[in-house]
Amino acid sequence: MRETLADWRPAIDDAIADLVPREIDAEYLESYFGEPTYEYDPYAVQRSLSTPLWDLLDRGGKRWRAVLFLVFVEGFGEDPAEYVHYACIPEILHNGTIIVDDVEDGATIRRGERALHHLYGQDIALNAGNALYFLPLKVLSDRADEIPADRRLEAFEMLMHELNRTHLGQGMDICWHNEHAIRATPEQYLEMCACKTGCLARIVARLAAILTDQPAEVEQAVATYAELTAVAFQIGDDILDVEHSLGRAGDFGKEFGNDIREGKQTLLVIHALQESAPDQAERLQHILSADSNTDEEVAEALSIIEDAGSLEYAREQALELSAQARAAVEELDFDEETTRKLREFTEFVIEREE
Amino acid sequence: MRETLADWRPAIDDAIADLVPREIDAEYLESYFGEPTYEYDPYAVQRSLSTPLWDLLDRGGKRWRAVLFLVFVEGFGEDPAEYVHYACIPEILHNGTIIVDDVEDGATIRRGERALHHLYGQDIALNAGNALYFLPLKVLSDRADEIPADRRLEAFEMLMHELNRTHLGQGMDICWHNEHAIRATPEQYLEMCACKTGCLARIVARLAAILTDQPAEVEQAVATYAELTAVAFQIGDDILDVEHSLGRAGDFGKEFGNDIREGKQTLLVIHALQESAPDQAERLQHILSADSNTDEEVAEALSIIEDAGSLEYAREQALELSAQARAAVEELDFDEETTRKLREFTEFVIEREE
Repeated sequence: MRETLADWRPAIDDAIADLVPREIDAEYLESYFGEPTYEYDPYAVQRSLSTPLWDLLDRGGKRWRAVLFLVFVEGFGEDPAEYVHYACIPEILHNGTIIVDDVEDGATIRRGERALHHLYGQDIALNAGNALYFLPLKVLSDRADEIPADRRLEAFEMLMHELNRTHLGQGMDICWHNEHAIRATPEQYLEMCACKTGCLARIVARLAAILTDQPAEVEQAVATYAELTAVAFQIGDDILDVEHSLGRAGDFGKEFGNDIREGKQTLLVIHALQESAPDQAERLQHILSADSNTDEEVAEALSIIEDAGSLEYAREQALELSAQARAAVEELDFDEETTRKLREFTEFVIEREE
Repeated sequence: MRETLADWRPAIDDAIADLVPREIDAEYLESYFGEPTYEYDPYAVQRSLSTPLWDLLDRGGKRWRAVLFLVFVEGFGEDPAEYVHYACIPEILHNGTIIVDDVEDGATIRRGERALHHLYGQDIALNAGNALYFLPLKVLSDRADEIPADRRLEAFEMLMHELNRTHLGQGMDICWHNEHAIRATPEQYLEMCACKTGCLARIVARLAAILTDQPAEVEQAVATYAELTAVAFQIGDDILDVEHSLGRAGDFGKEFGNDIREGKQTLLVIHALQESAPDQAERLQHILSADSNTDEEVAEALSIIEDAGSLEYAREQALELSAQARAAVEELDFDEETTRKLREFTEFVIEREE
């Protein structure tokens, strides 16, 4: 077993390179996609798939979805080194979703460089992102001799279910973002996070459980852990943006209040709208739905959120979700090593970049 | 059995409405996507998924992928009425791909109205399109009691394989479109069509064969028929654009030569570049790669294509592919009724809108 979680990264990248090599040739295309009816164009596949993907991967990322998968596999008593290719499934899916999300959100920067659709064109980026939704699932068929048929079927059905819910969550988030009035309840906000961010985490956990043949209740427990952890991190992100902004709002020339400027519907905003006096709530709503805001307006919105006690509320929610997440896996009696790694994992992810 | 293929359309639309109702409520969301952890927002799912999809479906479309699926099912001796929900799988996948393709191609019009990303926003359109890549596959899990596990697994593995190749074909097409020089060989052009257009047709045929438990050689034969037919139709489209343009090039004020203006790499163009004298080939290449063209330039490009004998070449290729397609299914000894319907199907599709 690797000493620290970060040690897995080279092995994970090697496995990703088995699925999508840095240099595409006809031999790879024939072995991965089957004999062509006529003739492939490896150069076009290089340009439309491999180059954009490896550009994104080489910019960084902790590969935490792959790492968490391997932690679970080890916790279930299997050798993680034998499961590295399966670990790529959630990791590649994730990279597909961020390419597509960046187009949907109109993002310009990703991991400190220009977003892929700005660099390669929207058509190339979108098609590459979508290709990555299907490409890794082929691992299950290509390594059919390693996993019994009933487990492979379960894996496919689980993946389709969770990927459906991912798009449901993204749809909720986009719809809210496009509306002027904020309608979402705290429960709906949590559901959006559980779907949009949580389902990919659930894939990590459930895939590890399914491929190592765990009973249904174990699969359910790790899925719950993964979902709750993802939701807690999402709320943590929202809290950090407000805390960071409150600290900087006085500093001349510093950027602050990005979520407010984007009109993002966060748990803090939803709570503040519910708890503030009508005139304050109306003011917050107005600032959030405006096309642009002055620094003074952003600072005012932050004050309304602070005065409503929304930071404390969100912190309590995040702590409660984290406690529920821990409780979900404590029932499982993982060995000490895995428990330590799951704790280490939380620290590993908390210093996250995306 | 329905009298004509078009008679199936209401039943197909009813089945699609079972998968994505026109009016979304919490009950549907819970039954199709499972119990929420917290609380769904049906209104947001209405806006982000159902409304765009039904807008597109209500604009028309012959649902030919679903119809062909049902023709095969009947040909295989099963009652097509019992397979209508499965027929929706390729149909919904197809509608997902056209929403996404329209974003990638920067299209403005679809089925005579504004493309979905212009009407609902790029974020909503893309997420809806992508959601439709996964949503119909759930039919296989939800109706698990109807199809044995080994067939369901085969269906999932086939779908992942073909959807992978769809993205490979689209990637080749996009890459070529973005290049100034035309590099593709006729064989690579045919492969692009076989992947981009052919794979969805292969899904129609293979899914019908898998779900009705046909032997591998039958599945292979209908897949070959479907792929060849799709490629032949694609070439037919390219021929029509040139023929139509040659007929209209003299008429004042009429639009003509759309493929030339878009710089589209078609089989005719690739052939003309190979067969023309160097100065003519260079001129054609120059016109195709220019950002815009005068009517005179388009007419000149059309003449070069005509003089190179590229229309005759493409017609021969399309005829040859159609003959191969017919040969692939003739081996199967379908009953007279199915043979008639497969012939009727060709006529049905040839008056196509998309």
